[in-house]
Formats: sequence, C-alpha cells, structure tokens
Amino acid sequence: MAKKAVVLLSGGIDSTTTLAIARAEGYDLYALSFHYGQRHEIELHRAREIARAFGALQHLVIRINMREIGGSALTDPTLAVPKDRTAAEIGAEIPITYVPARNTIFLAFALAWAEVVGAEDIFFGANVLDYSGYPDCRPEYLRAFEEMARLATRAGVEGRMRFRIRAPLLHMTKAEIIRRGWELGVDYSLTWSCYDPVEREGEVLACGRCDSCQLRRRGFAEAEGEDPIRYAE
Amino acid sequence: MAKKAVVLLSGGIDSTTTLAIARAEGYDLYALSFHYGQRHEIELHRAREIARAFGALQHLVIRINMREIGGSALTDPTLAVPKDRTAAEIGAEIPITYVPARNTIFLAFALAWAEVVGAEDIFFGANVLDYSGYPDCRPEYLRAFEEMARLATRAGVEGRMRFRIRAPLLHMTKAEIIRRGWELGVDYSLTWSCYDPVEREGEVLACGRCDSCQLRRRGFAEAEGEDPIRYAE
Repeated sequence: MAKKAVVLLSGGIDSTTTLAIARAEGYDLYALSFHYGQRHEIELHRAREIARAFGALQHLVIRINMREIGGSALTDPTLAVPKDRTAAEIGAEIPITYVPARNTIFLAFALAWAEVVGAEDIFFGANVLDYSGYPDCRPEYLRAFEEMARLATRAGVEGRMRFRIRAPLLHMTKAEIIRRGWELGVDYSLTWSCYDPVEREGEVLACGRCDSCQLRRRGFAEAEGEDPIRYAE
Repeated sequence: MAKKAVVLLSGGIDSTTTLAIARAEGYDLYALSFHYGQRHEIELHRAREIARAFGALQHLVIRINMREIGGSALTDPTLAVPKDRTAAEIGAEIPITYVPARNTIFLAFALAWAEVVGAEDIFFGANVLDYSGYPDCRPEYLRAFEEMARLATRAGVEGRMRFRIRAPLLHMTKAEIIRRGWELGVDYSLTWSCYDPVEREGEVLACGRCDSCQLRRRGFAEAEGEDPIRYAE
C-alpha cells in the first residue's frame, strides 16, 4: 500500500508543482482546497481539474467563510488589490492580500483530514523566495506548526502517527519551481495565479498586474519558457 | 480603551465560565462559535444567548463543514455516542467523540479574528481534569499553539502583538469551575452540554447519559448545587 499525503492545492503554480512532487515520490494523493470567500472561484475549478489530472484519490473542497473575519484584500471586496508593484515593493512588506492566519487555518484542516485518512505527510507549497512576504510561509513557522501538530492529535499522542509538513519548494525561486514542474510533466495551462481576474468578451483573463501575476510572469521569463495562460494586459 | 479578548464559546459550562472570567478581568469580549456539522444546533442558540447576556461586543458564528472530514461521533451520524460510561472509562482513553484537530481549527480561526480585531488574548475553556482525554486540551499543546501563533501572523512578526492562549480552567475540576461561575454570577440554565439530546413532547432534553452529561452531573453534585437544566433520564 502506498503511503498517503494530504496536499494543499490552491490551483496555482506552487501547489500544483507540489502535487506533482508528491506524486513523483509515490504518494497516494488526497488533495485539499478551500472555498474561503476569495474574490473569484476560478482557482477552485482549476484545482479540481488539476487533482483529476494527477489522479488524486480524493479532492476535498472545504467551504469556510473568512469574509466574516475580514482583514484582507483577498476576502474583502471593499479593499483594492495592489497593482503594478515592483519586485522590491512586493518583497518589502506583508501586503494587504495577506489573509490573517490563513495558512494556519488551512494546515489545521489538512491535519484533521490527514489524521482521518492516515496520512503522515502534509504537502504545502510554501515558499520564502520570490514571494510576497507572508509570515506563515517561513520555515520557522512550518516547524512550529509541525511541533504543535504532534501534540494536537489522537494519532500523534498515541504514537501511531508522526505528522510532517513537507514544503519542497521552500527555498526555490519561481523559475526553479516552474522548471521542476516541467521536468515532472506539469501542464501550467491548468493553473491559475491571478488575485483579480478580468472578464473580457466572455473570457476570464488574468489581470497581469497584481503581485501574483507579476511573480508568475517573471518566473516564466527567468525559466526561459512560455507562460501558457492569457493575460488582459 | 479596554483590552480585547476573543473567547471560544461553545455554550457549555467550561466556555461560559471562561467568558465570565474574561469579563471579570475587564476585557471587551469577542465571542466566537462554530457551526461545524455537530449533531445538533442547540448549543449554538445557547451560545448566542450567553454572548448577549455577557454583553459581548460581537458574536461571530463561523460555519465550517467537518462532516466531510469525518472521523468523529460528534460529526458523523452513523457513529454512536457512548453512553453510561463510568468516570474511569471516560478518563481512560480518547473517545470516539474526539473530533480530529478540532481545537486546532477553532484556535486557528480565533487567531485570525484576534489579529483582525486587535485582541492579544484568546480565551479557551480547555481543561485537563474531569475531561474525556482529548489531546488538544493539554497544556503542552496550548503552549505549542501559542508558539506557532507568534510566528504565524503579520502582527506577531511585526512585533505589534503577542498572542496568548488563556486557559483559566486548565487545572480545575468541574465542581471548581461551577463554583467559580457561581461567584461570577453565571446562569447555568443558559448552558448546554449534551452530545446527544432527546426530543420529548416538543421539548429538547439533555440525554443524561453521554460522557458530557455525566461529567456535568457529577460536577454539580460535587459542587453541592443544583443543575438547572432538565434531563431525559
């Protein structure tokens, strides 16, 4: 019987490449996505297609309402998503697209599901480089979560399971992530990155200007390959 | 301006007494409850009344679906809730009413809301005595969560906030908790403890036999006072 992994899957480049890495390591895949009041649902449709493409045994979409909690441009339609920021600006501070404690909430659900299905490994596409400075992507945070997870669960306390947070992309640049994905046969046309998509002539396009679009575009440029998705500008 | 506290409020004796303690310490109260696919919603109605009775500034009920994750008699209607267990049996092992990683999920949401409203203190009615042996109520778990929380948030990383998990009931017996509540004027007729309520002649009654009812009844007996709620048997 193959070992099992719960993989957090947002439908973006990082989580999709992480899913590909977990599959390449021989895990049975349990893909986990969240409908958390984000501005658009495109990424969830993409996550569903990606989970199917990688042969995930299950794909669970958990609906939680983070809009009621507020505090982020990703979940509060009254806050504007920053556009056209330079790489230096993106890296300089934690942006308004930070969703308070979001990764802690996501990892907590992943831990619950991991205990139920019997998966000791939780794969998470956290990344410290080429990233917008979210605190809950840093290695010291991930180690602290792992430590907490060992104490939080019945399986951990009873010594039957030892949960690990696997973050294989942690120290990779976006270009390195994309190249690794290509090696593993990832079709990046399935992925979605944009925080603030634009609808034009019935088609939904990535804006090309939000932090996430800019990081993606720079990543493909540095990887010296073509980004297969279309941008509004 | 009063300091703020997020208080996890299930509507039971422990969380209600915890809310009373936070109020007595002078906090502005932000009560947080969850609709997580539990078998019945009575406790949420009670939580709402209790939040109102204590003058909470806000009461947020977050809807999450833990039934999809499964693994517990509290969220899976096909699993039976244990009945008529002795005190020794209740303390001996982690029961089927354990919901995988539930407190981690609850505390993660509390942390998110705490960061948004600017509350450094999260009050949680965890208790190690007189309890059914849940791993995520132990002090070492709470300390590990607190450590993780400091690394997880923007406010923590920027040094603006230092989150604390306050568990004032941690080492108290149920009888001590009830007596403390009485001192603080808690009306325990508002609270709900039963895992498996019984409907009789249009009235919803506590079963009197699940672990939670038994712990409650023993608590009132030891506190030498009257439990103001009615039991089916």
